[in-house]
Amino acid sequence: MHTVSDYQTYFLEYLSKKIITKEPKNLYEPISYILNLGGKRLRPILVLMASEAFGGSYKKSLDAALAIEVFHNFSLIHDDIMDAAPLRRGKETVHEKWGVSTGILSGDAMLINAYQLFENYESETFRELATLFTKTAIEVCEGQQYDIDFETRDDVVISEYIKMIEYKTAVLVGAAMKMGAIIANASESCREAIYDFGRLLGLAFQLQDDYLDAFGDPDTFGKQVGGDIIENKKTILYLKALEFANEGEKKQLTGLFSLNPENPSEKINTVKHLFETTGAKEQTRIEIEKYTEKAFAVLDKLSVTEDKKEVLRLFGKKLMNRSV
Amino acid sequence: MHTVSDYQTYFLEYLSKKIITKEPKNLYEPISYILNLGGKRLRPILVLMASEAFGGSYKKSLDAALAIEVFHNFSLIHDDIMDAAPLRRGKETVHEKWGVSTGILSGDAMLINAYQLFENYESETFRELATLFTKTAIEVCEGQQYDIDFETRDDVVISEYIKMIEYKTAVLVGAAMKMGAIIANASESCREAIYDFGRLLGLAFQLQDDYLDAFGDPDTFGKQVGGDIIENKKTILYLKALEFANEGEKKQLTGLFSLNPENPSEKINTVKHLFETTGAKEQTRIEIEKYTEKAFAVLDKLSVTEDKKEVLRLFGKKLMNRSV
Repeated sequence: MHTVSDYQTYFLEYLSKKIITKEPKNLYEPISYILNLGGKRLRPILVLMASEAFGGSYKKSLDAALAIEVFHNFSLIHDDIMDAAPLRRGKETVHEKWGVSTGILSGDAMLINAYQLFENYESETFRELATLFTKTAIEVCEGQQYDIDFETRDDVVISEYIKMIEYKTAVLVGAAMKMGAIIANASESCREAIYDFGRLLGLAFQLQDDYLDAFGDPDTFGKQVGGDIIENKKTILYLKALEFANEGEKKQLTGLFSLNPENPSEKINTVKHLFETTGAKEQTRIEIEKYTEKAFAVLDKLSVTEDKKEVLRLFGKKLMNRSV
Repeated sequence: MHTVSDYQTYFLEYLSKKIITKEPKNLYEPISYILNLGGKRLRPILVLMASEAFGGSYKKSLDAALAIEVFHNFSLIHDDIMDAAPLRRGKETVHEKWGVSTGILSGDAMLINAYQLFENYESETFRELATLFTKTAIEVCEGQQYDIDFETRDDVVISEYIKMIEYKTAVLVGAAMKMGAIIANASESCREAIYDFGRLLGLAFQLQDDYLDAFGDPDTFGKQVGGDIIENKKTILYLKALEFANEGEKKQLTGLFSLNPENPSEKINTVKHLFETTGAKEQTRIEIEKYTEKAFAVLDKLSVTEDKKEVLRLFGKKLMNRSV
């Protein structure tokens, strides 16, 4: 039985073999650069893991895993341009280092390259992988557009927010796992179940990311605690707070979310206090629990052997406790 | 027998049926906008035409034709961002109207949508179309990168320039025609031949575009005559001029190509004069002839009936005389 760390090793070995800087250098160097920036490689690991859960060999899934990772990094390059972000994983973003044109074009080439990797599968599998990938990639674009739209809207409701993060991040987790199932030739019902497991886990993970941004441990969270509050991001905490706030609290919260103080610590503390008094903190925890439990309930019903479920369950638990 | 104008009508009818603005509006409106901006629709017409030349029905090729047109417009949106172009077909560019972020994201969605259109074909055809499309799309990105690189290089040789325009524009013409052949189930040798016909015709057309930019009739060319000279673009005319110029002419030409005078008419006239005295004008005409003749030679050897060749030959001739 392989461990998560085994899968990570196999993937990183494959990645390093596949990253080659061809001509024109200015197109391919940024691609090598971002793929070498690191990260936890969660999505490709899930492809390999799902494949073996359904009795396939991880080796056959390496190209699909790489396609998922290449696509994810394409979306990071283009999102970083849209967000005018200077840093990614503590290093210069691609557009910061090479300019916006190169960022756009290298991203485009990566999106195409992801499709190219599916060519290593026979026709029927190729079709299934490419079709799932296309549906997912379109949803990721739609999710990103909703995210941009929400920045300038003040009437976003929670169901819209959930749909946005589902599209922007969760469907790719589901698709990664379903690709493993497709390559392992799992039944249609297993493919749907593992997709739902990944999608629900992805949702829970993203909601937890919102939660930890305000209430996480600064030593283990990895990002600046309070970052979303500084940027006035309408996360689940903010939307839940507005839902449960009285008129006074509502005014105070929307007022604070129109400010960009030079020293944000007082704003962060007041907002966090409002998240607690309105019950938003508690309600968000409940939502995270709800999606996590839904994910594991899908897993329980999955018709694979108990030891194989256990690998996925352990990974899901580690993910939600953020020790992975 | 269908005429070029028939094919254009069929394609435009199909296009108007397929353009629908879904949610999120800010993602899909720019897509409808650019697809409705017009243009000659040469590439999709070539898909339909090639398909019927090999005994297929144009109807079966409409989705592939649309994919080619959607991809072409994706590349226009992203290229316009890179060129900071304010206008496209006399109207505001997408990034000018909606901002750079929307331009990037709508373009991404179009690239994915192009792949989606191939899903309307059965597995083996889907694989063949998607694989050809991927190879072509990567080459278009590489061609665009070479074009960007050439702007800041002063040692570009003609073979590199030819490769750049081949990748940036000609391979898509070849791929469009090959898609028609694939859908009509033409033999492998026919597929390769029609690809070469399209690629060579695309090259001849692009070289002619360079030529007409300096020496075209202002009434019929469609773009501003002298535009490339104003922008100091290193086209085939410029590269040929450098190749054949004596030291004095070389100095004069490179000097002029480092200037951006407010009133460019004197610069345009002097450069055009240099294009003539160095023999670059004549040499460029010879290159155009060479690629046009190569294209028609491939067509001559194609094993389809003479009447079907005639449609393609006529279209090629019209294209090179710019009456289409």
